[in-house]
Amino acid sequence: MKDSSEYLQKKAFFDSLLTIYGRKPVLEALEDLSVPVYKLHLASSNRRDQLIQRMEALAESRQIEIAYSDRNELSRISKNSRQDQGVALDLALPHYGRADKFLQEIATRSAQKPYELLALDGITNPQNLGMIVRSACAGGVDGILLPKKGCAQIDPLVIKASTGTLFKTRILRCDKLANTLRDFRKAGAQICGLSSHAQTTLKEVADDTPTIFVLGNETHGVSDAVANQCNQLVRIPMRNGVESLNVAITAALISFRRES
Amino acid sequence: MKDSSEYLQKKAFFDSLLTIYGRKPVLEALEDLSVPVYKLHLASSNRRDQLIQRMEALAESRQIEIAYSDRNELSRISKNSRQDQGVALDLALPHYGRADKFLQEIATRSAQKPYELLALDGITNPQNLGMIVRSACAGGVDGILLPKKGCAQIDPLVIKASTGTLFKTRILRCDKLANTLRDFRKAGAQICGLSSHAQTTLKEVADDTPTIFVLGNETHGVSDAVANQCNQLVRIPMRNGVESLNVAITAALISFRRES
Repeated sequence: MKDSSEYLQKKAFFDSLLTIYGRKPVLEALEDLSVPVYKLHLASSNRRDQLIQRMEALAESRQIEIAYSDRNELSRISKNSRQDQGVALDLALPHYGRADKFLQEIATRSAQKPYELLALDGITNPQNLGMIVRSACAGGVDGILLPKKGCAQIDPLVIKASTGTLFKTRILRCDKLANTLRDFRKAGAQICGLSSHAQTTLKEVADDTPTIFVLGNETHGVSDAVANQCNQLVRIPMRNGVESLNVAITAALISFRRES
Repeated sequence: MKDSSEYLQKKAFFDSLLTIYGRKPVLEALEDLSVPVYKLHLASSNRRDQLIQRMEALAESRQIEIAYSDRNELSRISKNSRQDQGVALDLALPHYGRADKFLQEIATRSAQKPYELLALDGITNPQNLGMIVRSACAGGVDGILLPKKGCAQIDPLVIKASTGTLFKTRILRCDKLANTLRDFRKAGAQICGLSSHAQTTLKEVADDTPTIFVLGNETHGVSDAVANQCNQLVRIPMRNGVESLNVAITAALISFRRES
């Protein structure tokens, strides 16, 4: 029993790790004391130039473990041998986790203010993803559902565009977004897909129910499989015949709709 | 008298012209029938390759005048000899005009819904400018005060980022923003500078008075000279200790604050 609980704790910890790579992003993360770091990985084949020495010194002063591995092993860690430049860094993000875990949590906690999430369906532009995180965090959204495929993934560009808010925002990873949304719907959430053709406006969405707003791809909108899991489609009313807004703008208007 | 009125009409027409340059942007504008074009300028030194021939054909089919000039003359027209690639295009934007003209208009028209403008103070990123235009247009803002110096200027990048909404948005050019804001204030507008340190929140801004919201530089905020012309400073309440929003996001939250 103890073993199983230890295993679960360990698993939860490893689920919260985000590995970034590349010399500049890794150095920047090491220099930024607000970024929680678990482990620095260096390819043993790296020439120990100034940059590598600086990383080692920073890791030592921050008491961060350094692991040296061969080039192949490092590729497995970074999952991007083309761009890792022999360097990877595990960030321990307290708010980085899994959608199914969030659902379990919700099931056990007593009634509170209904939660509100954004779900991203095919958001491919890292700049947009970073801006969405920033706005959602500032607007007080409870988390962002980010599927493992089909969306931009959290990488140095996204971290930069989020201007540090990524480390404060609950990012909930999932496999297939459509399946995850089905699970949330079963658990009582209303799933609102954003669509410029919708009848219902954002204002009309009930705010006494847990709600997930689904933001679709920058060009094609919400995918069919995901639209099938939506209880309703919702639009933001626009003037002057404008047909769409930038997806990060849409995310902000949702996140702040009761604030501003 | 007739001469003077003709002169003023002509002047108003030339004030509404916006010259863009570069082969790709010019070709795209010629191909887009919704973009109102006045004149195509080609350097006579251009090799008549496929692209130039295509521009000429498009201009002919749209009955747009083509002016051929030497390289120096073309530089004076494009005002950017490094990037014009021997090609410039005058757009005749019905909504492109001058702040002082807008003020005159306001003075003569009978009382209506109070107008609402965005004023840009040192917005240097073209992507942001384009997104601001798009959001302001969709949110129904009456115009954007754009000083001739210190801000990104309307160029192909901005037009692209605005996804066509630039042609529907009233852009009001002015020289020194601080002076123009003073004139608007004298004419009865309230000038609200956005600042994260403000006491007043966006929600609390009176909406029965003509209002100008001033958006400051991406890093340094509203400049001192401009802040001196503001009746009040206004902030958007943010959660999770987030200190600032992207300026285009701020513009959207202002523009949509009664809609969404």
